[in-house]
Amino acid sequence: MGYLGLNDLIKRALEEDVGYGDITTYHLIPREQRARGLFVAKTPGIVAGIKVSRAVFNHIDTASEFEIIKRDGEEIQAGDVIAMVRGSARTLLTGERVALNFLQRLSGIATKTHRLVEMIASSHAQILDTRKTTPGLRVLEKYAVRIGGGRNHRYGLFDGAMIKDNHIRAVGSITKAVATLREKIPITVKIEVEVETLEQLREALEAQADIIMLDNMDVTMIKQAVQAAAGRAILEASGGINESNLVEVAGTGVDFISIGALTHSAPSLDISFDFGEANL
Amino acid sequence: MGYLGLNDLIKRALEEDVGYGDITTYHLIPREQRARGLFVAKTPGIVAGIKVSRAVFNHIDTASEFEIIKRDGEEIQAGDVIAMVRGSARTLLTGERVALNFLQRLSGIATKTHRLVEMIASSHAQILDTRKTTPGLRVLEKYAVRIGGGRNHRYGLFDGAMIKDNHIRAVGSITKAVATLREKIPITVKIEVEVETLEQLREALEAQADIIMLDNMDVTMIKQAVQAAAGRAILEASGGINESNLVEVAGTGVDFISIGALTHSAPSLDISFDFGEANL
Amino acid sequence: MGYLGLNDLIKRALEEDVGYGDITTYHLIPREQRARGLFVAKTPGIVAGIKVSRAVFNHIDTASEFEIIKRDGEEIQAGDVIAMVRGSARTLLTGERVALNFLQRLSGIATKTHRLVEMIASSHAQILDTRKTTPGLRVLEKYAVRIGGGRNHRYGLFDGAMIKDNHIRAVGSITKAVATLREKIPITVKIEVEVETLEQLREALEAQADIIMLDNMDVTMIKQAVQAAAGRAILEASGGINESNLVEVAGTGVDFISIGALTHSAPSLDISFDFGEANL
Amino acid sequence: MGYLGLNDLIKRALEEDVGYGDITTYHLIPREQRARGLFVAKTPGIVAGIKVSRAVFNHIDTASEFEIIKRDGEEIQAGDVIAMVRGSARTLLTGERVALNFLQRLSGIATKTHRLVEMIASSHAQILDTRKTTPGLRVLEKYAVRIGGGRNHRYGLFDGAMIKDNHIRAVGSITKAVATLREKIPITVKIEVEVETLEQLREALEAQADIIMLDNMDVTMIKQAVQAAAGRAILEASGGINESNLVEVAGTGVDFISIGALTHSAPSLDISFDFGEANL
Amino acid sequence: MGYLGLNDLIKRALEEDVGYGDITTYHLIPREQRARGLFVAKTPGIVAGIKVSRAVFNHIDTASEFEIIKRDGEEIQAGDVIAMVRGSARTLLTGERVALNFLQRLSGIATKTHRLVEMIASSHAQILDTRKTTPGLRVLEKYAVRIGGGRNHRYGLFDGAMIKDNHIRAVGSITKAVATLREKIPITVKIEVEVETLEQLREALEAQADIIMLDNMDVTMIKQAVQAAAGRAILEASGGINESNLVEVAGTGVDFISIGALTHSAPSLDISFDFGEANL
Amino acid sequence: MGYLGLNDLIKRALEEDVGYGDITTYHLIPREQRARGLFVAKTPGIVAGIKVSRAVFNHIDTASEFEIIKRDGEEIQAGDVIAMVRGSARTLLTGERVALNFLQRLSGIATKTHRLVEMIASSHAQILDTRKTTPGLRVLEKYAVRIGGGRNHRYGLFDGAMIKDNHIRAVGSITKAVATLREKIPITVKIEVEVETLEQLREALEAQADIIMLDNMDVTMIKQAVQAAAGRAILEASGGINESNLVEVAGTGVDFISIGALTHSAPSLDISFDFGEANL
Repeated sequence: MGYLGLNDLIKRALEEDVGYGDITTYHLIPREQRARGLFVAKTPGIVAGIKVSRAVFNHIDTASEFEIIKRDGEEIQAGDVIAMVRGSARTLLTGERVALNFLQRLSGIATKTHRLVEMIASSHAQILDTRKTTPGLRVLEKYAVRIGGGRNHRYGLFDGAMIKDNHIRAVGSITKAVATLREKIPITVKIEVEVETLEQLREALEAQADIIMLDNMDVTMIKQAVQAAAGRAILEASGGINESNLVEVAGTGVDFISIGALTHSAPSLDISFDFGEANL
Repeated sequence: MGYLGLNDLIKRALEEDVGYGDITTYHLIPREQRARGLFVAKTPGIVAGIKVSRAVFNHIDTASEFEIIKRDGEEIQAGDVIAMVRGSARTLLTGERVALNFLQRLSGIATKTHRLVEMIASSHAQILDTRKTTPGLRVLEKYAVRIGGGRNHRYGLFDGAMIKDNHIRAVGSITKAVATLREKIPITVKIEVEVETLEQLREALEAQADIIMLDNMDVTMIKQAVQAAAGRAILEASGGINESNLVEVAGTGVDFISIGALTHSAPSLDISFDFGEANL
Repeated sequence: MGYLGLNDLIKRALEEDVGYGDITTYHLIPREQRARGLFVAKTPGIVAGIKVSRAVFNHIDTASEFEIIKRDGEEIQAGDVIAMVRGSARTLLTGERVALNFLQRLSGIATKTHRLVEMIASSHAQILDTRKTTPGLRVLEKYAVRIGGGRNHRYGLFDGAMIKDNHIRAVGSITKAVATLREKIPITVKIEVEVETLEQLREALEAQADIIMLDNMDVTMIKQAVQAAAGRAILEASGGINESNLVEVAGTGVDFISIGALTHSAPSLDISFDFGEANL
Repeated sequence: MGYLGLNDLIKRALEEDVGYGDITTYHLIPREQRARGLFVAKTPGIVAGIKVSRAVFNHIDTASEFEIIKRDGEEIQAGDVIAMVRGSARTLLTGERVALNFLQRLSGIATKTHRLVEMIASSHAQILDTRKTTPGLRVLEKYAVRIGGGRNHRYGLFDGAMIKDNHIRAVGSITKAVATLREKIPITVKIEVEVETLEQLREALEAQADIIMLDNMDVTMIKQAVQAAAGRAILEASGGINESNLVEVAGTGVDFISIGALTHSAPSLDISFDFGEANL
Repeated sequence: MGYLGLNDLIKRALEEDVGYGDITTYHLIPREQRARGLFVAKTPGIVAGIKVSRAVFNHIDTASEFEIIKRDGEEIQAGDVIAMVRGSARTLLTGERVALNFLQRLSGIATKTHRLVEMIASSHAQILDTRKTTPGLRVLEKYAVRIGGGRNHRYGLFDGAMIKDNHIRAVGSITKAVATLREKIPITVKIEVEVETLEQLREALEAQADIIMLDNMDVTMIKQAVQAAAGRAILEASGGINESNLVEVAGTGVDFISIGALTHSAPSLDISFDFGEANL
Repeated sequence: MGYLGLNDLIKRALEEDVGYGDITTYHLIPREQRARGLFVAKTPGIVAGIKVSRAVFNHIDTASEFEIIKRDGEEIQAGDVIAMVRGSARTLLTGERVALNFLQRLSGIATKTHRLVEMIASSHAQILDTRKTTPGLRVLEKYAVRIGGGRNHRYGLFDGAMIKDNHIRAVGSITKAVATLREKIPITVKIEVEVETLEQLREALEAQADIIMLDNMDVTMIKQAVQAAAGRAILEASGGINESNLVEVAGTGVDFISIGALTHSAPSLDISFDFGEANL
């Protein structure tokens, strides 16, 4: 994923789980015993994070060999072998849980995202994530959204400006807020305005906001917004959208639909680790 | 929660979200503007992690004032105000998302745990968590389980020995595995054995294992295990247990029922942050 | 500056300078002796980073009192007192050098930026920084550029896409590169294309690049580019621009002029620390 | 350079620049594409820090191959190739800027130092650096000074005692300050006294200070100081010395001449990174 | 030892000793010079920590070759070669002191533990360590105790509950304290009660404490405690036990005897590092 | 002690001991209960590190109140109260062990140092420490040596040059080694040469080494060395010196006597923590 911080993340996850040592494995498994482990899907879904799992074993022992069988983004069925790791039996037993914790969470997010993306595949709209991610895992969770076919909104408060009602009130108007930011923030970053009414929408369009978030609007109003914007800004529908109304919202012609549940409430994908002898 | 590492966790979560600065708030909100924010429940549940949210704001600005209205463990209804924070408007806008991300996840876990605990309240059994937690958040997630009325299994690989089939195979027998560990691990830590058959159970009992995990047994077999153990070891039922069969499993007389979904698949509790003027 | 990481930066700077202790001050200055120090300008310029200096003393001793007399962005003349710190004499003597090292570097950048900004004040163009910053100090150096009246380009490789010739060659065309990124990167981030010819410029305009960097073009070609673009994209002139040709480049109508020397070659501003008795 | 902390420095520099990923390169350059890059001098100077650049690419990808052509300390002319790196095209594009930022700054310092060293090559005096370095980069900048032919003063407040007027005033006299330190500080570390008059010089000599700094003295007074000292202490001239008066100061017979501008105001050396296909 | 945090420990130890560089070795020993070093025992004892020493050299230079001749736990005599390291002469000279500091301290602990273990080899009792360890080195020091034949008590405040008089007083009774903890702490962790009288002992036995610490009891009372317990709980004698009364205490039939001096007052084992030419 | 890194040291020590929480205290002691604790000497000695103990409690809870009764360097008798801490009962119980571990070790070092210093009080010689310290605690242990009346040798490999036989062999001669370093190392740092014969001593004196270490010389040879040096260099006796021959060595007129056992083998001073009700 090109993310240099991954190593630190894995280090912390292992320290959390292993602490001063895996007291069961250390005292029972001979140092020289070798083994192999299979990551096996127990329900269908989309794989995401298999390289994170690989990095977990490599962090414990650089001599671990990890073979990826299903790459990130591939659909898997129950029973599919996703990857195989060979190495010291100690390493496999000590790293198994952390490797699964990453893989199951990320695959869960990719799977949920993919299901929503498929639902609106025939529309113009794209599924968008939010900042409602697990503290410490944002870069991975946003990656999993992409793997599932979704798009990323800003990573954090620094790589996208988002003018909300409180900002507007502090400055006086949408117009002034947009103008102020346009003179201050890095020139590579877009300005988004959150609007609740069509009047606000029109002001944001006048102010040449790059993106406009339609906050908690119903389908009728979103349609009107799309008409009013007429392509002059990117439109994002947000708030109260879930599997029950997603298709309808996508049908309005809006560009993006953001859904916090992609990351904050996706259930883990069920994946097991089948440990066995090295020569199996 | 008595957890000294909380500060580092919050620091990382804020660095992840704020990065080199909240470019919207910094340029639009005057430094001296003050505000107040309310954490408001949007669905019923159990609060957990409110002090983590408080710590988020205090990390940004030690002058923030945070009033806890619903303490961890309290039941809340939609519309209930859980807490109020007063301070610099910049601080509130910058910290809001991270504070919510912690609070919603932890309250989600407590809420799910509480629901399961209530389901089996009339039985002897207790709900138990697992190591299937979010990397980096284990101490908080296990705390949320306790707040929801559940019990904690070992924190990691270091504060409880768990003998699985691979360990048994490496050493030769349950008997030998238990005896080996009893001579090696810290004397304050218990030995648990994972068994799949009643025969293994009997060997584990003979070996005087402190805890025995009944792995993926059906209700009939769990009942037989309870009878066979006759109180000589703590019994934990594990594997494939969910809301549909939980009550039945609890009825077997088993001591603990462990459920990974408590932490790996609990949806976030829906909580909003209502930002307003300082004197509201 | 709203930068949460400042504390770590200062901690590292102090550890680097103080190591296991200021052996002169510790053994010669009584613990209870109090003092005051004045930051005094020795040449004219623009102040930047005064709060960083304040944070240095507060890091050593939270009881230090620091009075800012000239705020960031103010013009100062030789002899002007910029700030006064009162506190333990040990704290002042130990922190002085680190506080000055930050303040002089940042004020040097702001001063240089301000001079260039003034030179082209009557034009439409704005001065832009680059990623040619001191490793570890980027957030502070880009802040100093803003204080001097300049604008920030992207902070790093993550908050702005910049398509260079190597990227174009790998994908096949500017058109394809822009289209690919538009489907992949966070929607809040703009796409910039680096062009060397007017033909490339036209392709980038067709592809609807948000920003186009005119790489090492002479004034004549920049003028043609401005005409060709006709406001359809933001234009940035870059490469080989310095005080000798800056005004001419600004006269072309280009939107931004980026200058690496703002941060990589600005001389420190000369500021002294006058240490004296507490009651002076 | 034998500096174990280099890896952390590079890690921080890369995290600062790359953040959660190089979004342009990651999405446009195929993982398997290989490339080579040349570091080419654009103006004459002295190379310093080439191994730091090598370490940058190795930090991203240990499989990078880096060939040093001009070693640290070598003189280079415009057009000279300083080094070549081969590896993944992604690695080269992502690491280029950080590698250059280190190399240009350090080479700039070495170049400036070398010019001053050459100016006084026929004298007894040596050029000395100061603690006026960039926060976080001191070990590298002092290394660059050595590469340029200069000498290092103390690294920080811990590996050299420096008695200034404030220390003297607190203790009562130079004599007492030197005697106190001689009984307290590590026995491997020298004691330097900063003096402004010949009378103070004589007291410092009597007190057997190891080094005496002649603070802001004019050339006449420095000559008198050299005569008075007659080799009984190392003499360092400091304050207000630059290229215009350096030769004259060196002519006084003083041992060392310290110049803060070596590190705080040396312009970066102009070096480019020419990216090309792997088989060029 | 299966301890993932070892690398950080070694990094900090080297940073502490090497700082910004080994100025003697760096300037005098050619980069390419190779050497070999022997770790030689100067007094008899038990080796512990030899892999820590290996890791020290590998941290400086992964190309170091380290041959272990006496493994942890082996008895050594004066003159025995414990290990040999080959590699860059610089690496060996720079790492020697840190490698020895670890090895001598850990071997000292193992040696002292072994001596005490031997003294009571014919009894049922086992030697137990405490939390009286060197800050930062607990995991290593407890490992050394095991190597010497001793047993580990809890690692810290988290992997074993220990009810002391202050806890009892706060809750009201031993009975209530044990019952409270049994409902709260992780189910894998044992409950120990510290008692000073036989009456307290009986209450703790009634409460089914897992372990009971007999605090500062004399031999007669310990014997009575053993009789009273009759195997219903693990008994640990603690307080005022040293080489002069150890055998007598062991003779009482108590299960464990804890001795803080194992870790807080064991003298280092005398080991030298014989540096020589590479081909010796 | 003026050591900015103390906070990190304490943080690591507490994390090591407290981990994810003090499970006994947290569940048994009410949050609001207050208490006081006394540090009481159980044997005579010299206090060192009392501020470190204070910092431990302040790290857990800034509201802790710590009253120092015996300052570092004071002699204490069995029964003396060294300090009193008041605060939350939880804080006191959780921090007690770590506070004692620091205080007992440092006081042990100061006590041992003081005893040796007293033994040779009538001589010219001073007791010197070495780099044989506990990894991670050097700055504290060297501080304790000073508190006990001893002197510090170099802190690490960076603030003092020490030419040993291997360095000499690599360069060719003592003369050349000293001359090389004099041109390379920071000018504030002294050069020490380790010699084994009087011939080497004479070469080192000729080369104007600042300090000469007499390595493993007997008393007769040390006397000859003192005569030969005649004050031209500082002389340090080292190797095989302990309480049995210390006075004799000091009688030779040597300047310093270095003893590794000061730090690597000083037994902890016996100090207890008497916990009681807040109003006692």
